[in-house]
Amino acid sequence: MSKSQMNIGILGLGLIGGSLGFDLRDQGHHIIGVSRQESTCEQAVTLGSVDEASTDMSRLKSTEVIFVCTPLGLIIPMLEQLIAYLSPTTIITDVGSVKAPIVKTATSLWNNFIGGHPMAGTAETGIKAAKRKLFNNNPYVFTPVEATSNDALKIVETLACQLGANIHYCSPEVHDKAVSWISHLPVMVSALLISSCMNENDRTVVQLAQKLASSGFRDTSRVGGGNPELGVMMAKYNRQELLKSLKEYRCNLDRLIDLIEREDWENLEQQLNLTQQIRPAFTAKSELSSN
Amino acid sequence: MSKSQMNIGILGLGLIGGSLGFDLRDQGHHIIGVSRQESTCEQAVTLGSVDEASTDMSRLKSTEVIFVCTPLGLIIPMLEQLIAYLSPTTIITDVGSVKAPIVKTATSLWNNFIGGHPMAGTAETGIKAAKRKLFNNNPYVFTPVEATSNDALKIVETLACQLGANIHYCSPEVHDKAVSWISHLPVMVSALLISSCMNENDRTVVQLAQKLASSGFRDTSRVGGGNPELGVMMAKYNRQELLKSLKEYRCNLDRLIDLIEREDWENLEQQLNLTQQIRPAFTAKSELSSN
Repeated sequence: MSKSQMNIGILGLGLIGGSLGFDLRDQGHHIIGVSRQESTCEQAVTLGSVDEASTDMSRLKSTEVIFVCTPLGLIIPMLEQLIAYLSPTTIITDVGSVKAPIVKTATSLWNNFIGGHPMAGTAETGIKAAKRKLFNNNPYVFTPVEATSNDALKIVETLACQLGANIHYCSPEVHDKAVSWISHLPVMVSALLISSCMNENDRTVVQLAQKLASSGFRDTSRVGGGNPELGVMMAKYNRQELLKSLKEYRCNLDRLIDLIEREDWENLEQQLNLTQQIRPAFTAKSELSSN
Repeated sequence: MSKSQMNIGILGLGLIGGSLGFDLRDQGHHIIGVSRQESTCEQAVTLGSVDEASTDMSRLKSTEVIFVCTPLGLIIPMLEQLIAYLSPTTIITDVGSVKAPIVKTATSLWNNFIGGHPMAGTAETGIKAAKRKLFNNNPYVFTPVEATSNDALKIVETLACQLGANIHYCSPEVHDKAVSWISHLPVMVSALLISSCMNENDRTVVQLAQKLASSGFRDTSRVGGGNPELGVMMAKYNRQELLKSLKEYRCNLDRLIDLIEREDWENLEQQLNLTQQIRPAFTAKSELSSN
């Protein structure tokens, strides 16, 4: 079913869309990019991320697979416009970091839709940040539902394999719960660290803190200092799960404050021993593959 | 006043003590190390971190400056034993990460005491982790008080300069407030992220979360997965300041949960914009000097 070389569309030429273009072109596919901005189209062609690019969505009508790589809030609105141009055999997949609400609406709009989430990123954004091998050795989650066509799934799976990604399957709901813990909660926890430091009123303390902050603060605050729009999208689209995670976090914070107030050092040490023991289950793989 | 080559004692041959030994020896000083464990003494000599090493504290009586590099909880008990062997001209400084309680007691025990805190570290601990240039380009805080001898301060300052450290001065209290924000609060915030993930009851979700966790989770959870004893010491010795920071953090968390519950995306974006803008004031320097 899956052909060796395909016409592939990429709607949204940012970090993810641009990087997909590079790797899929390297595999011999013909890539047509679409962006709302003419300058982005020109850059994508110049950089070699796509074969051709346009601001006109109808240019995607001859493609066999389309990756929708817009910001989360634009996936459904773009999809609604896009499908007017397509033949029903075209496969559409997205790269949004929240799946349940997207997959539900997208599947009702288009039979051949498959929810996807390549877990890769850098601190930078935009076509200029796009690079080869971004997805290599990183997780790529697909969230098929009952209505999902098996043949279509095979085809996007083959493409994800060509990116060198590690493929995972789960329901949209399980995906959203998992990323709430390991992606969305960290962003909020990290942002709150920065906001809290801003609440110190003594200028002498703040100035010294800024001079002394080193790798510990830098790492813990990194994702909280990232793209604000992305943070809002996580909260907006994964609101229920994120609220659950944040409330669980607040319970743990209350318990910790209580332990320190009661000077219960034994239980505090037990708690910190546990976190030290459990962390490698989450990070062992990424410490191997990163850098 | 400060001689070019001195007899220097290091009490406690772990990461910090061992690394100090390397750099101070490289400057031509004669280094005598003391550790409670014979095997550590042997390793320190073999590695070249010290000229000689012993489990016998009295060997430090001929030294002009002594760095106390034991864990925080042992600084005062060790100091009480140590001073029995010393002439009153010997300068003692420590490397503890909390200053007010240490400086108060140590100054009452020994005239020539100067509180110090070199802000450097790695994920590893012990003499095997000791390395050259650990302090180079990193902050080194001294917390002189009214009773502190100026001549003694000059001498330890000269040694810190020889390490290539960036020297800062402040009161013990201002130090403890600053490190509460940028060092102790991050450890707790990070540890709580790990504990919260452990509270998810659905095994399918936990297993997927462990597979999907990548650089964002890894960085945010790093310091929370560190040495549990160190975490307890921070909480024990900097209890009041850490509690203040944790409660400020809780207020911010409550406000965030409220914003998300009320779907107030405008204010959430404003909040995340602010954290994005403020972070570089804390990290700009460390992003230059690290790696």
